[in-house]
Amino acid sequence: MIRAAIIGATGYTGLELVRILSAHPGVTITVATSRQYEGRPLHKVFPSLSGSVDIVCQSPSPERVIGAADVVFLAVPHQTAMTQVPVFLQADKKVIDLSADFRLKDVRVYEKWYQPHSASEYLAEAAYGLPEIHAAAIRKARLVANPGCYPTTVILGLAPLLKKGLIDNKSIVVDSKTGVSGAGRSAVLSSLFCEVHEDVKAYKVAAHRHTPEMEQELSLLSGEEIAITFTPHLVPMGRGMLSTIYADLKGQQTTGDLISEYEEFYNQAPFVKICAEGAYPQTAHVKGSNYCFIGLKVDERTGRVIILSAIDNLVKGASGQAVQNMNLMFGLEETTGLKGIPLFP
Amino acid sequence: MIRAAIIGATGYTGLELVRILSAHPGVTITVATSRQYEGRPLHKVFPSLSGSVDIVCQSPSPERVIGAADVVFLAVPHQTAMTQVPVFLQADKKVIDLSADFRLKDVRVYEKWYQPHSASEYLAEAAYGLPEIHAAAIRKARLVANPGCYPTTVILGLAPLLKKGLIDNKSIVVDSKTGVSGAGRSAVLSSLFCEVHEDVKAYKVAAHRHTPEMEQELSLLSGEEIAITFTPHLVPMGRGMLSTIYADLKGQQTTGDLISEYEEFYNQAPFVKICAEGAYPQTAHVKGSNYCFIGLKVDERTGRVIILSAIDNLVKGASGQAVQNMNLMFGLEETTGLKGIPLFP
Amino acid sequence: MIRAAIIGATGYTGLELVRILSAHPGVTITVATSRQYEGRPLHKVFPSLSGSVDIVCQSPSPERVIGAADVVFLAVPHQTAMTQVPVFLQADKKVIDLSADFRLKDVRVYEKWYQPHSASEYLAEAAYGLPEIHAAAIRKARLVANPGCYPTTVILGLAPLLKKGLIDNKSIVVDSKTGVSGAGRSAVLSSLFCEVHEDVKAYKVAAHRHTPEMEQELSLLSGEEIAITFTPHLVPMGRGMLSTIYADLKGQQTTGDLISEYEEFYNQAPFVKICAEGAYPQTAHVKGSNYCFIGLKVDERTGRVIILSAIDNLVKGASGQAVQNMNLMFGLEETTGLKGIPLFP
Amino acid sequence: MIRAAIIGATGYTGLELVRILSAHPGVTITVATSRQYEGRPLHKVFPSLSGSVDIVCQSPSPERVIGAADVVFLAVPHQTAMTQVPVFLQADKKVIDLSADFRLKDVRVYEKWYQPHSASEYLAEAAYGLPEIHAAAIRKARLVANPGCYPTTVILGLAPLLKKGLIDNKSIVVDSKTGVSGAGRSAVLSSLFCEVHEDVKAYKVAAHRHTPEMEQELSLLSGEEIAITFTPHLVPMGRGMLSTIYADLKGQQTTGDLISEYEEFYNQAPFVKICAEGAYPQTAHVKGSNYCFIGLKVDERTGRVIILSAIDNLVKGASGQAVQNMNLMFGLEETTGLKGIPLFP
Repeated sequence: MIRAAIIGATGYTGLELVRILSAHPGVTITVATSRQYEGRPLHKVFPSLSGSVDIVCQSPSPERVIGAADVVFLAVPHQTAMTQVPVFLQADKKVIDLSADFRLKDVRVYEKWYQPHSASEYLAEAAYGLPEIHAAAIRKARLVANPGCYPTTVILGLAPLLKKGLIDNKSIVVDSKTGVSGAGRSAVLSSLFCEVHEDVKAYKVAAHRHTPEMEQELSLLSGEEIAITFTPHLVPMGRGMLSTIYADLKGQQTTGDLISEYEEFYNQAPFVKICAEGAYPQTAHVKGSNYCFIGLKVDERTGRVIILSAIDNLVKGASGQAVQNMNLMFGLEETTGLKGIPLFP
Repeated sequence: MIRAAIIGATGYTGLELVRILSAHPGVTITVATSRQYEGRPLHKVFPSLSGSVDIVCQSPSPERVIGAADVVFLAVPHQTAMTQVPVFLQADKKVIDLSADFRLKDVRVYEKWYQPHSASEYLAEAAYGLPEIHAAAIRKARLVANPGCYPTTVILGLAPLLKKGLIDNKSIVVDSKTGVSGAGRSAVLSSLFCEVHEDVKAYKVAAHRHTPEMEQELSLLSGEEIAITFTPHLVPMGRGMLSTIYADLKGQQTTGDLISEYEEFYNQAPFVKICAEGAYPQTAHVKGSNYCFIGLKVDERTGRVIILSAIDNLVKGASGQAVQNMNLMFGLEETTGLKGIPLFP
Repeated sequence: MIRAAIIGATGYTGLELVRILSAHPGVTITVATSRQYEGRPLHKVFPSLSGSVDIVCQSPSPERVIGAADVVFLAVPHQTAMTQVPVFLQADKKVIDLSADFRLKDVRVYEKWYQPHSASEYLAEAAYGLPEIHAAAIRKARLVANPGCYPTTVILGLAPLLKKGLIDNKSIVVDSKTGVSGAGRSAVLSSLFCEVHEDVKAYKVAAHRHTPEMEQELSLLSGEEIAITFTPHLVPMGRGMLSTIYADLKGQQTTGDLISEYEEFYNQAPFVKICAEGAYPQTAHVKGSNYCFIGLKVDERTGRVIILSAIDNLVKGASGQAVQNMNLMFGLEETTGLKGIPLFP
Repeated sequence: MIRAAIIGATGYTGLELVRILSAHPGVTITVATSRQYEGRPLHKVFPSLSGSVDIVCQSPSPERVIGAADVVFLAVPHQTAMTQVPVFLQADKKVIDLSADFRLKDVRVYEKWYQPHSASEYLAEAAYGLPEIHAAAIRKARLVANPGCYPTTVILGLAPLLKKGLIDNKSIVVDSKTGVSGAGRSAVLSSLFCEVHEDVKAYKVAAHRHTPEMEQELSLLSGEEIAITFTPHLVPMGRGMLSTIYADLKGQQTTGDLISEYEEFYNQAPFVKICAEGAYPQTAHVKGSNYCFIGLKVDERTGRVIILSAIDNLVKGASGQAVQNMNLMFGLEETTGLKGIPLFP
């Protein structure tokens, strides 16, 4: 059994790691940390775990984690993660970091969008944890930088087109919609029920920190520097993320042609499903699961392709993907512990 | 492997049976019927099944079902169920009926609240499928009448008190709140998003058909005829049911005393969890799971006890409970295939 | 024009006072205070006011308020209100206090449920601001204690029965459901979208501070000491409150008989509407308005009456009722500025 | 008083017309028609009207309407409207048609996206009812074609840029999000609470019938033929629409420059509000009102402008705009009856 530590177990992604790993046949959760709830059984913080999970929140002491775990999941804010990753790597632990701290290869880009980096010497070796693109690197990695939720939808949504050079790289526009759980379990005014209910809004317009992460990976896929326009929106639901991606096609492909390209590109990817022509993904259809559903349409009137890419932001957008990465790092079947069927309705 | 047929697979309880049974280690779904979607792969009706379930909807032909199944789940409306149950029983199938047709022992009561019964000769042998109360009968039954969602919350909520004779049986008031999925997947005005969103309402006030079902079981538990006042309410959520139950205590028990009674009563029941004093169940904490969470409070000022009982109406209130019954009928561990952790948030 | 000051204008009840008073033909808002947003235009805090309201938040200086206002609305927490009410009364202002500080006549009851009272000498003269019951006192009052949202639904729902002595006063059970706006505009974990969405829960079971307020008024109406059992619940909507009230009938009245009693009792009350037999109130049907809709049903099987009483908690449950009180205090038509039609859907 | 007839009063836009016109100081509703609810008081269909509106639904007899009304609002489906408009025009009534039947000037375009047109001789004289653009024509019109909800957001969002020629007309991408009320009050599966709750999806991708309407008006504004890419999305809320519009800037304008252009363009438009730099519109902030809030951001990294445009789809997107048009047609102040402050939260 793999012994897993979850650092930051009482946020929504921490809880989701607990939910998934508790049902994983090859894993035992040995440590769950929480400064705020130290000493409390986790099922008192989250009654949804009653009867299923029996672990007590500990303070995040590195020694204890090192002694008890083979793999460390960091579900802490960026800037906190960079102080902990080196400690666990030096103790020969495998580390899966759900924060942004090790996703960007270029420290200058990181420091432009975030703040100074105190552990940039690890950037080079960190594998970008999107298994559909980087499986080989992830299998060998000590440190995996788990992707952001928005980048997961967008990179998966564009990879086949970029790899084949089918679109004008300057024309990419990304319009994303997310549920409120993406904002985390923090008591802030903007996440109150009455502030987001019966509302749609854009936020961090053309200024969201996931932008450089997308651009890094899209550029890698295409072989050219890519800059995109990205607008995230908040919609009144708990889980779910849908990205609508627009790009100018260079050629005359039909919707059917492109669907074939996507099916071929993802024919070894167990969690990516391509919708049939005329069907489009809905976030409700992936809720609670590690799937990414992708749909396509060529707008023949304007020569653009529209790609729709849906995930559960807490699963494929965070904790499920982290477990998928763990499976690869430990030589397990990629889908182990992740076969749960979406919960609809 | 148990071969299971699901009659009526394209309603919400049918879909939930598919979701649960697909992940059950001892079951293969061999037949899923739907008049409306005959010939269509089920995952085209419910894209949430894409990649997980590969079965085509068939017309509900009894012969085919009989040839292919060991157990038949009926997820069809009452009045339809009573025409099918005899066919499957006569072919020596085990039958779990999710409709109301075989829940009431007294055909006159059934015919008063519903309509004439065409198969009343099977009422006597049907086991009322609430495993926490009737496990022995269920284990031996050919036919299990799966309880209604409201009765599940209310019977589990009151059983310990009635069994011990702790309350005035004339004083019971039940105020229940349900999510919209309980109304099924029918295109009716009253289930439209805009008609239930941002709204709470009572419906079928003191006139809901689950009333005699509750009264039958509560009377059995207490040994006295019991009549209750029951008001169901609709709240704007998809899944979830909470019943708030009021009764006059005969004695001077404290909240702690009663919690002890409940813990003892349910100490062999894997799906019933009693909340600690001061804590109360929330439907969000059982979503997607087969749990029933129960909380208690004695209102010392008035001598009443208040019991709160929460389930996922589609799981413990319908399809999960049906699978729990199947496990008992086939001699499997009661929790097989039902250990999924609730999905929160 | 009546010059109105709103103390605490940036909570939800404060905003609702601004919305209603801005459209009131006899009122000018001269002061809106907010410690947190001092100096900011109110429409920057609440963009919904852009184009309609042009006032800047001030610090809550009593002198400025006294110089600029004829009536002071206090939309501040209890305990804060009791320090301000004497100041404004001594300056000969009319005061409408939306907090709980002056609702209870018996200071010992107040101090048992809340904390010590520093201005109890004003309790006797405060009029309890439920116009349907206390219009005469309100018309003459300098100080009106605006009722709580729960008490508004419950007192209006029970008044005709208590006045006529038709029910067993010991048998009253109140089960209420509220939207999340009742918790106010505070950044607390329990009001986060992800914590209340897709959830129903009870809270402060048999322990809510509105209990003594209801009991005081119900006792006054009946002439006997009344104790009730009260359970509030939180449902996932922004606005709206529904109370379901249960009581044992002494006699054999039919639903129709009781509806006639209610229609007669409220025939001069412009904001109370009694539903026809078989119809029940929905919170969606009063949203944004000052109405209270009441429906009734006699459960003949058990001899109980079930009363359903619905309001918008921010309007008839708070700010609309405050303006209704102001109209009476200043000799205006009771409905002035309050005729807005509910917003459905 | 203007006597108004509402044809199709029991859909959501019909109800919204009733709500707005009932409070309009210059209007009396004399006829409200409904085939389905003929003979029923409207407040029995919509209890939200209880106490405010006392009118009985009639069958849609043209004679009765003609005898009783000065202006006819058609809130009926397209194809039905085209059969009624000529009747009312020939009887010298002013007609405001909320359907799509008279919005497109080119009958071939109409027949390509809809079906054959039986009254195309009236297309030329119909004024396109967007007062911020076509006030002069509306003032003189007998027939106003009230715009669709999507076009209202998009045309208002792009008009200043097109008028000044600031963007590349080939580069326009529109990504819109709507609440469920836009689908109307029809009992269809896709509008059920459980089918849209906790979900976001695109629909009619690059194929929505509002596309030619937008293109007609955008082309008129710019003086060039414009084709756009348009993707509508459904989000789980009742009311509200947000369009996010992307276009390539020809020049080097800053966000501030463009905001100045918009403020100048709309300085006579009482219902259009331009957000300050860094602020963006939210649908919750216009709920129940006739406002359109617009925000802007230049994405300097890519040279695109992002425009956000929010309305209440039932008010500025339908019934409120219809009343605004009526005000112009009858020489009233444009804002009469439309000054209601948005309901937040």
